[in-house]
Amino acid sequence: MKRNLLLTPGPTQIPPSVCQALGEPIIHHRTPQFQEDIKEAIEGLQYVFQTKNDIYLIPASGTGAMEALVANILSPGDKAITVEGGKFGERWTELCQAYGINAHVIKVPWGQAVTAKEIKQALEEHKDAKAVFITLSETSTGVVTDVQAVAQEVQKTQAVCVVDAVSGLGVIDLKMDAWGVDAVASASHKGFMLPPGLAFVSVSDKAFKLIEESKSPRYYFDLRKSKKAFEKTDTPFTPAIGIVRALNESLTLMRKEGLENLFAHYARLARGTQQAALALGLSLYPDESCRSNVLTAIGLPSTVDGNKLVKVMRDTYGVSVAGGQAELKGKIIRIAHMGCIDEYDILTGIACLEKVLTQLGHSFELGAGLSAAQKVFNQE
Amino acid sequence: MKRNLLLTPGPTQIPPSVCQALGEPIIHHRTPQFQEDIKEAIEGLQYVFQTKNDIYLIPASGTGAMEALVANILSPGDKAITVEGGKFGERWTELCQAYGINAHVIKVPWGQAVTAKEIKQALEEHKDAKAVFITLSETSTGVVTDVQAVAQEVQKTQAVCVVDAVSGLGVIDLKMDAWGVDAVASASHKGFMLPPGLAFVSVSDKAFKLIEESKSPRYYFDLRKSKKAFEKTDTPFTPAIGIVRALNESLTLMRKEGLENLFAHYARLARGTQQAALALGLSLYPDESCRSNVLTAIGLPSTVDGNKLVKVMRDTYGVSVAGGQAELKGKIIRIAHMGCIDEYDILTGIACLEKVLTQLGHSFELGAGLSAAQKVFNQE
Repeated sequence: MKRNLLLTPGPTQIPPSVCQALGEPIIHHRTPQFQEDIKEAIEGLQYVFQTKNDIYLIPASGTGAMEALVANILSPGDKAITVEGGKFGERWTELCQAYGINAHVIKVPWGQAVTAKEIKQALEEHKDAKAVFITLSETSTGVVTDVQAVAQEVQKTQAVCVVDAVSGLGVIDLKMDAWGVDAVASASHKGFMLPPGLAFVSVSDKAFKLIEESKSPRYYFDLRKSKKAFEKTDTPFTPAIGIVRALNESLTLMRKEGLENLFAHYARLARGTQQAALALGLSLYPDESCRSNVLTAIGLPSTVDGNKLVKVMRDTYGVSVAGGQAELKGKIIRIAHMGCIDEYDILTGIACLEKVLTQLGHSFELGAGLSAAQKVFNQE
Repeated sequence: MKRNLLLTPGPTQIPPSVCQALGEPIIHHRTPQFQEDIKEAIEGLQYVFQTKNDIYLIPASGTGAMEALVANILSPGDKAITVEGGKFGERWTELCQAYGINAHVIKVPWGQAVTAKEIKQALEEHKDAKAVFITLSETSTGVVTDVQAVAQEVQKTQAVCVVDAVSGLGVIDLKMDAWGVDAVASASHKGFMLPPGLAFVSVSDKAFKLIEESKSPRYYFDLRKSKKAFEKTDTPFTPAIGIVRALNESLTLMRKEGLENLFAHYARLARGTQQAALALGLSLYPDESCRSNVLTAIGLPSTVDGNKLVKVMRDTYGVSVAGGQAELKGKIIRIAHMGCIDEYDILTGIACLEKVLTQLGHSFELGAGLSAAQKVFNQE
């Protein structure tokens, strides 16, 4: 009877009709039938990415999509700018280092976002930088980057603006074309409500010029091969057939809802969660100026062991939320507002949080979190 | 009412219980629950790989597993030996070239297998070669390599023996430990009866020493990260949760059947298909000495357009077989003996082949192929 509710920032809850699609027998990929699937998937993804650029489907997790962008856009010895304000920003730096790329790192205190001004300054100091790597929603801290403002600065230079939107796409706004973003990495298991294993990469013409010049070694992630196959509605290597077909069901649901409604839905869930956390005497970890609607990072009092909280919620009551990573281990919990969830799922998560907080000796009025969220969901 | 029968060399037919597992809601991967899944998967894979070595699970297609081995085992400037007797042998060469590795290529006529003697000779001429890359079952030609004999030669040298077993593992014998194979790449969508999207890599201690020394850039495919995570029953990046859980159902079925019985089953299907082809006046493409039981490559008379044959069988009658690739385009068809299929599926495939051959003007006695296969299936 124990439930299995995922309020984790990836993987997320999968809609029943998408589960059903995943359970269907497979078809062969080099067929007109699967070409139709690819065509439909690309059209739907272009809607979500808000772009007219090509989008490449690569069987991999989100890190694979990020590596594809680093290895294709830059060559060994090139200069790039990265931003470290959390674990996923650091991943861009690590990827650059793995490929012999000279990364100038902008350090940002955890819980804060990089500003367009800082990016502008870095670009002025490093005029030879070929790329700026940022993170739409930093999953480790619950911080959102003002991608529009950053991209505007990058656009004025020779550099390309590369965004890790693995977490966030389809949940919060990212207008790839209108904002002048040159490359976006995303993946199946967050906003797209699918199992992990399918990565998405989209690049602008400006970025593709660099891809053609790049001397970095790559084969599986070679976007020149992806582009060539894309032009024939194909993929260079065997695609993740099952997830691609289920993606079309997900995209149908997302398009039916509409991007603006999806963003409003998740923003509402985020506001309810934030108010509940405050009503329970907890704090909101990120600065108010940069709180992501993708997930709420909640600071815990030092008397509460965050690791234990997460473990009991999940193993005893079947409600999965995420704990803190790295320096935040045990100090925060993270409740995601992504995937196939509604206000009742969030209320369930808050009810379970209240139950386990009580067991761990944190004092507050039982139901206070639920009431606060309920008010947001019904009185706004 | 049209069927969807996959007699293609990947993807293969998925058993109903595996489809069911694929359709189940997802769980989070950084949990004791998923650790149990990983543990079970590794044990089952070690049974199929016939190894005690670590096995790493990487969300990717088979080419990703091959790239992981090239990029981890060798450094730019290193010497390697590759064998080109088909499209997948060529892929090893291309991967080496992408990573700046000096590949000495042994050219083998298509339809023939490399011999241990040729490998021995190449190793004597290239004493600095660090790795020999071979293909268990060359999908483009239907040729099987005598991996045991080749590995025996490689073992006498400093080089490691690396096998592409993407196609073939679980279908024909490959005793990784007993034969002294140092590295094996495989994937989910062939013998393991799963959708594409999950790659498997296993390496010996001898190979892992090279991995620790390698200077090739890599991150997502970095097997040092994989090993570190493996030791904690974890994966370095988000795993393909859905396919891993379904893999455990597949492995349960495979272990229940037993490797020897699986090999005998597929060998019988191969013999039936071969006899049917001959009874229809068609030829068997590979040399008799190296015909793979993984798939049967059937030569067509010049009067029959192989591309059309494949298209009509699939689009009109719902039976998918593969056509020829590269220089064999239009000249052969390939019927696979992999995945969740039995003798009745092969008979269905042969019946459909007879039907379409007749439509394309090839003359033979209708039912001759079926009878020949039926005799193999019932009189052996």
